[in-house]
Amino acid sequence: MGSTQLETVPEPKYWHLKTVLSEALDSEFAVGEILPNERDLAARFGVARATLRQALEQLELEGRLQRRRGVGTTVAPPRMGVAVGTEQHAWPGAAGDAWQSADCAQAAPPAAVAAILETDRNEVVHTVRRSRMSHGQPVAAELLYIPASSVPGLTAIDAPSGPARARAVLRELQHLELEGQERAVELGSARADDAKELDRLPGAPVLVVTTRFVAAGRVAALSVATYRADTCRLTFGDSGSVEIHHGPERQAS
Amino acid sequence: MGSTQLETVPEPKYWHLKTVLSEALDSEFAVGEILPNERDLAARFGVARATLRQALEQLELEGRLQRRRGVGTTVAPPRMGVAVGTEQHAWPGAAGDAWQSADCAQAAPPAAVAAILETDRNEVVHTVRRSRMSHGQPVAAELLYIPASSVPGLTAIDAPSGPARARAVLRELQHLELEGQERAVELGSARADDAKELDRLPGAPVLVVTTRFVAAGRVAALSVATYRADTCRLTFGDSGSVEIHHGPERQAS
Repeated sequence: MGSTQLETVPEPKYWHLKTVLSEALDSEFAVGEILPNERDLAARFGVARATLRQALEQLELEGRLQRRRGVGTTVAPPRMGVAVGTEQHAWPGAAGDAWQSADCAQAAPPAAVAAILETDRNEVVHTVRRSRMSHGQPVAAELLYIPASSVPGLTAIDAPSGPARARAVLRELQHLELEGQERAVELGSARADDAKELDRLPGAPVLVVTTRFVAAGRVAALSVATYRADTCRLTFGDSGSVEIHHGPERQAS
Repeated sequence: MGSTQLETVPEPKYWHLKTVLSEALDSEFAVGEILPNERDLAARFGVARATLRQALEQLELEGRLQRRRGVGTTVAPPRMGVAVGTEQHAWPGAAGDAWQSADCAQAAPPAAVAAILETDRNEVVHTVRRSRMSHGQPVAAELLYIPASSVPGLTAIDAPSGPARARAVLRELQHLELEGQERAVELGSARADDAKELDRLPGAPVLVVTTRFVAAGRVAALSVATYRADTCRLTFGDSGSVEIHHGPERQAS
């Protein structure tokens, strides 16, 4: 085992319970199995309900448990590895893209988006809504903002609305030379429309991936993608694969 | 403004309040300013305390508000952009590394780590603890696991412990040829020791970045880095810069 010189820090009571519960999940419960109710669990481990609830919340945050209305608390499957950063130098909609276009609208973007795009107040911005599935489950919802000046060849009569319009916009986008892309990941909360699409409650924690696609020295398209934080592990490889794979291991900490 | 064809979804009551509060934060409050107490805020916006609390929780999750013991709820500065994915093909401890070594121990790694490293039960694993600062604030804590077989030239007498030992381990690591690195980002909760280092409460939401460093066809080192989710936006650029920069914009959704 060797000796450790790392400083030890006293941990709160629920933390020890969380560790014990986590081991019980590994040894006694199968994925998808419903946990006993809180009263029974608190009695079994000899802790107060409040302590138990804190431990359950932590395990939910770490993706070990799922709480669903009308079902109860179940043992979560390992998080899915979802490739995010490996499609270098390809526009949205290029061959091999994992996203499905759902709709396309011309709407004024939120102020924060307009600031990044540096668009004029009167410039049309195409807003493409896309979704991403993995293993039959929705894993992410995306809003893709494309200023009209990025797709000058687009004609109004060609597919006026819906998924066909979205595909027409993305097809035009491929004509630009992509100079670079910059991604950022941060914690967010699910908007009501995204939550519905992702089968979550509004306000659930999500991982927000913002990607700026740069062409001709400016941001030619901006993607704001909302990933389920409970089921997804976002992978950024420098191997070339864009395949979505199940990762066998849990959070390694 | 143009017309929108995106489906509209009814939003819960606190969501509208969140939007209103967010605008009030922009127009009436400065960064660092303490918000009025919950009773006064609920009265001002004509909502129940429970509704107000939900909205405040969302704003905290999105990094707009900070709650600190003994201080109250304050307006958060914009999240810092912290570069994570741009140091391609460099070992930890290479020139320009943003991390500071704090300690080094020989300890049995957690089971999940051992599984990834595929180490024998008896093999020594060096555990280097490092920390990362930005703008005078702690932004991340890291545990770096390096099997003894990855650093065969390391002598036991050379710096037996502490930061000097950590640097000796990392120096040896540079001799291996780095074949690739794979990163994953997921939601987690702060362990007590990380929480202390990051000036957060145990269990606070964190972004866990796991990096596998591959050499000679196997994982030669594994980094598990815990980033503050409230103050950090993790950036993955394909430009070469490793500079940490303040991002002026908020979550663009």
